[in-house]
Amino acid sequence: MSELRRDPITERWVIVASERAARPSDFSPRIPATAGIFCPFCPGNEEATPQELLSRRAPDAGPGDPRWSVRVFPNRFPALRVEGELLRSGEGLFDRISGVGAHEVIVETPRHDTSLAQLSIPSLAEVLRAWRDRIVDLGRDLRLTHVSVFKNQGPAAGATLAHEHSQLLALPTLPRDVALELERAEAWFSRKERCVSCDLIRQERAAGARLVFEDQRFVVLCPWASPTPFLLWILPKNHASHFEAVDDPTSTALAEVLRLALGKLERALEGPAYNLVLVSGRLRGASSPASHWRLEIAPALTVPGGFERASGCYINSTRPEDAAAFLRGIDPA
Amino acid sequence: MSELRRDPITERWVIVASERAARPSDFSPRIPATAGIFCPFCPGNEEATPQELLSRRAPDAGPGDPRWSVRVFPNRFPALRVEGELLRSGEGLFDRISGVGAHEVIVETPRHDTSLAQLSIPSLAEVLRAWRDRIVDLGRDLRLTHVSVFKNQGPAAGATLAHEHSQLLALPTLPRDVALELERAEAWFSRKERCVSCDLIRQERAAGARLVFEDQRFVVLCPWASPTPFLLWILPKNHASHFEAVDDPTSTALAEVLRLALGKLERALEGPAYNLVLVSGRLRGASSPASHWRLEIAPALTVPGGFERASGCYINSTRPEDAAAFLRGIDPA
Repeated sequence: MSELRRDPITERWVIVASERAARPSDFSPRIPATAGIFCPFCPGNEEATPQELLSRRAPDAGPGDPRWSVRVFPNRFPALRVEGELLRSGEGLFDRISGVGAHEVIVETPRHDTSLAQLSIPSLAEVLRAWRDRIVDLGRDLRLTHVSVFKNQGPAAGATLAHEHSQLLALPTLPRDVALELERAEAWFSRKERCVSCDLIRQERAAGARLVFEDQRFVVLCPWASPTPFLLWILPKNHASHFEAVDDPTSTALAEVLRLALGKLERALEGPAYNLVLVSGRLRGASSPASHWRLEIAPALTVPGGFERASGCYINSTRPEDAAAFLRGIDPA
Repeated sequence: MSELRRDPITERWVIVASERAARPSDFSPRIPATAGIFCPFCPGNEEATPQELLSRRAPDAGPGDPRWSVRVFPNRFPALRVEGELLRSGEGLFDRISGVGAHEVIVETPRHDTSLAQLSIPSLAEVLRAWRDRIVDLGRDLRLTHVSVFKNQGPAAGATLAHEHSQLLALPTLPRDVALELERAEAWFSRKERCVSCDLIRQERAAGARLVFEDQRFVVLCPWASPTPFLLWILPKNHASHFEAVDDPTSTALAEVLRLALGKLERALEGPAYNLVLVSGRLRGASSPASHWRLEIAPALTVPGGFERASGCYINSTRPEDAAAFLRGIDPA
């Protein structure tokens, strides 16, 4: 079984996933799955994946039918598992939690050779609703403290399979960087009686320089201190702490905005590898006036080096104002 | 001029280095410099680099003589510069510091086609002394708050030039992750009256499972919560807060240990890309009983994905106990 370990010096939690145990020879360069290679995520290969947790199928299609649009199932090589007892133990200076949690795969489309930006709005909205519904379901497990939803697209962004998919990790502890951000948002609120993200949205809409586009519900911007080139944030304009509270019409509106944002990046950067991550409020937390959910899209254009690794400080050679101006001028059609 | 910017939500400082300004087309795959391509770090090409700040040359060699063993000069495309005024300003929610600092290159050997593990002990000790002497010199500039010394070896670790070199970045602010670790070490000391790293060294020497080797002065181990496979820490056994206080005999002893550690990794992982970083005490700080310097060697075997990016939590598929046992059995000769 895997376990979570905390370093007493850096106070960072790490998942030591020994079921994925690797020998030095396993670290040869990865080759992404290409056409012609068996793809476990393609329709007809449902038996190659673990038992489905959620799917969207045609009304007349039963379980196992290959006519689905979205499928969710546990990762075959999970970093954490729902099975097992949540055990917390110490070993001198060291802290340990047993590897209880969840690690799921969301296959976003039956088509092997497409990209998220090419999905229809209804299909993309189904993906967002699958994320939402899985977070709500996992929130019922009181052992879990945090759910991270993320997508790695392309080998440079950490993907090992080409077929479009996202992943979800549910943890029994709040990761350090997530906890820090929530604490700071709460401290800001207690000083100001305002949400820091709402303040930021107001300031960025007024300034305009880092705004890529906006519609009635969402704003898309290149953040002031973007650690990497062409980073995009998508935020709801009206305060909302929890992504999982998004209703169906809002998920459709978000799908439109996400599709346009991805389309612009795809066109500007010629189909870059990227990470997509969801930042949201405390799991099972009541709606909070302090924290504000967002999606981040981070093209993987540069390789972080030792400085970034040691300091958490990044060097970005593209001003977010330049990235935003460039993306404003891109027509993704 | 570049500038440092702080994000009001993540509280992360970022160096926006507009002098390295990049257009989308600049993000094509990087090709490492190979033999036959002009190398600005090779002897005879001294004029291709900025004015030397420090060098080790034969006693009869004057400045400009190509018979050097180590050379230090400013980066040609610096993220930060010594020139200019230190200006701190706000823009609504946003914080900014002008890009004052230093960004230097340490060429570690005149030989183009060698690796750090193949240098002689005296040559490697010269590199460590060059780091030390540059930190001491930069510490005299009272505008600077932190010096980061790091090495990116191989394209997967962020290197763009093949000739062995390390870099140094001096900043006018303490990076978030460095500040967090120092604060926590100080909090530990105030509770316990002991250094947390000294506690860790005692526990790891007693346990043995994560120890790779030790000698009279240093211990080399795979940390309990290693975020990435085969991460190594090198720590002085006797409490020492500041690397820059290392004397010449200690730097020679460290060179021996570093050479053995790198040799084991090179043999075990077939010459991996890696990051080497120095973690040390507060710049200009008096010797502190709370913080303890170390070197980290992190082979770049995996690509961090969206989960790691968003949470600061890593998934490591190699137990540090397995990595340590494997490395103990490796003879680098």
